[in-house]
Amino acid sequence: MVWPKPLKLFTAGPVACFPEVLEAMSFQMFSHRSKEYRDLHRDTVKRLEAFLEARRGTVLLFPSSGTGVMEASVRNFVSPGGKVLVTIIGSFGKRYREVVESNGRVPVVLEVEPGNPVLPEELDEALKKNPDVEAVTITYNETSTGVLNPLKELAKIAKEHEKLVFVDAVSAMGAADIKFDEWGLDVVFSSSQKAFGVPPGLAIGVFSEDALEKARNIPNRGWYFDVLKYIKYQEEQWSTPSTPPIPQIIALNVILRVIERIGGKYEWLKIYERRAKKIRSGVKALGMTLFAREGYESPTITCVRTPPGISGLDVYKRMREKGYELAKGYGQFKKTTFRIGHMGYMPDEYIDEMLKALEEVLDELRKGK
Amino acid sequence: MVWPKPLKLFTAGPVACFPEVLEAMSFQMFSHRSKEYRDLHRDTVKRLEAFLEARRGTVLLFPSSGTGVMEASVRNFVSPGGKVLVTIIGSFGKRYREVVESNGRVPVVLEVEPGNPVLPEELDEALKKNPDVEAVTITYNETSTGVLNPLKELAKIAKEHEKLVFVDAVSAMGAADIKFDEWGLDVVFSSSQKAFGVPPGLAIGVFSEDALEKARNIPNRGWYFDVLKYIKYQEEQWSTPSTPPIPQIIALNVILRVIERIGGKYEWLKIYERRAKKIRSGVKALGMTLFAREGYESPTITCVRTPPGISGLDVYKRMREKGYELAKGYGQFKKTTFRIGHMGYMPDEYIDEMLKALEEVLDELRKGK
Repeated sequence: MVWPKPLKLFTAGPVACFPEVLEAMSFQMFSHRSKEYRDLHRDTVKRLEAFLEARRGTVLLFPSSGTGVMEASVRNFVSPGGKVLVTIIGSFGKRYREVVESNGRVPVVLEVEPGNPVLPEELDEALKKNPDVEAVTITYNETSTGVLNPLKELAKIAKEHEKLVFVDAVSAMGAADIKFDEWGLDVVFSSSQKAFGVPPGLAIGVFSEDALEKARNIPNRGWYFDVLKYIKYQEEQWSTPSTPPIPQIIALNVILRVIERIGGKYEWLKIYERRAKKIRSGVKALGMTLFAREGYESPTITCVRTPPGISGLDVYKRMREKGYELAKGYGQFKKTTFRIGHMGYMPDEYIDEMLKALEEVLDELRKGK
Repeated sequence: MVWPKPLKLFTAGPVACFPEVLEAMSFQMFSHRSKEYRDLHRDTVKRLEAFLEARRGTVLLFPSSGTGVMEASVRNFVSPGGKVLVTIIGSFGKRYREVVESNGRVPVVLEVEPGNPVLPEELDEALKKNPDVEAVTITYNETSTGVLNPLKELAKIAKEHEKLVFVDAVSAMGAADIKFDEWGLDVVFSSSQKAFGVPPGLAIGVFSEDALEKARNIPNRGWYFDVLKYIKYQEEQWSTPSTPPIPQIIALNVILRVIERIGGKYEWLKIYERRAKKIRSGVKALGMTLFAREGYESPTITCVRTPPGISGLDVYKRMREKGYELAKGYGQFKKTTFRIGHMGYMPDEYIDEMLKALEEVLDELRKGK
């Protein structure tokens, strides 16, 4: 068998899973049209509704990665040929633009320098210039640069302009707070293999009544990501139109129960906050600076500028040799940065060890070893 | 935890998984951009190419259910507004029609009486009447009626008319033979949770050069199921555009190795053949008849006509009480039929026990107990 050697994961996702989660993954299967599945589905959706504070929003589960729901947002809630304001602060904002274009809609782009968030006044200005867009897309947490956008403030501006708000929360949900109803969001999506620490294969989407109302008049929504079809199946039988990834749903259910057991959402988010601070201060103590603008650092991934003369790729490779899988810098920043993910199963001592190994690696590279 | 009681599964899928497969599902995660993942992906694709005899075809892995690739076939290989001959022998043929329509293409329907396959002469006639269709869709194995279509012969006719051949092999692949190149197929898809006996969450698609050539000129293929994008990622890095369901890919790799160990594809298919015969003769020995026309019985699921005065739903419920999960009759045949799936992990003694329990159930129901 092609069997990877065990590395300690500080990846951008898939991330390491909790032992309880891995155990649940090996549960024997059952039918997705059975009472057992309905109970599992309903319980998981109800827990997500509470976690995301989406009492008015509708939570759905998709047999796809998060990008599937990105595509769903465009096909269900934007008119064919309609305009979307796509805000870009890194690679995943660019992906949203591609998804808009490849589905026959027109992106209007607001792009900022990598390392920065979109600021509310920038969004306000872009919307004043483009009053004809139907929706605004926001990358909540940009995995490529380690920047967290000020989602609550951005959503407020978008709602003042009466636009639908689509949020790519793939590397944010489960670590950065989301108050779906209160913040006036319309579509929020994520996937299992990020801050929830579950294996990949499952996406989560949340949808507002306004968005769903609009979908009813959008033609050619397709079958696989037709959100109204998902709602019909969920309302009638607590299941999905086509077969869902049952192991990942069981695993997500398990982690939502773990969250409950440790004191609920806000206790869980504090773990992420503490972990991110520990990694950021560890990196700074080694004399390096962060790629993200101060005040907008991600709670799930830290993008680090390598010291002069040292390549991020070399840091990545040497850390792997020492047993730690970090993430390479993304795209054009492959050499000048590397990234440390903070998601999933990550005992504190792993972080200490990893920072120590990082110190050794930087030392070796500085000495040209 | 919402934890289902263990039932012996004779379902239409998800099906019971082999112990080796379940063990593999709990493996710790790793990055889908790592060397380890590339090795796993390449090895799995190569094994599938051999299994499906697709040396000229391209095998791809999708983070979706099989229906996702059904949608991909329409969006990638049929012109917007173009016509498709959809052959319907049951519910999943009807689903193909819905997928064609909801993606802005035009279905031309050839539908036969449930229980029957499409015959080559019927397809020939339909294609003579509709020379302007761009493709023909065929449900290889119709899960709702337990009928296996004569795929090789149907594909031959479609190719004589120079049409692309799209094959829904969801409940066929891994149990009914597929010779992709030799039979002249253009798109064949399936999913993990059927005859391979792996948990749900992964789809497999195979694509001919002719199909891929055509895709280059189709606009608005979308992002998530853009087959050309999948090929680019596979060629450049043996991975997928968005995060793949790694546990299911490991599990599929394991089962493909199990198949190799027991003597290869044809030995494995014989297991399915023997199992299907055993179940069919067991059912007939209890005085019941099959829904499928003789000579076209499915190797993966048997649809049984209930004796007069007995409801299929009652058979289903009573069997569940005895610890066996069969499948209900589908749609309009819920009362007059029930179904017995033969897929996945199913030791011979389970079949004997199940048939014995079925005898008892029929007896109870006849006596009005």
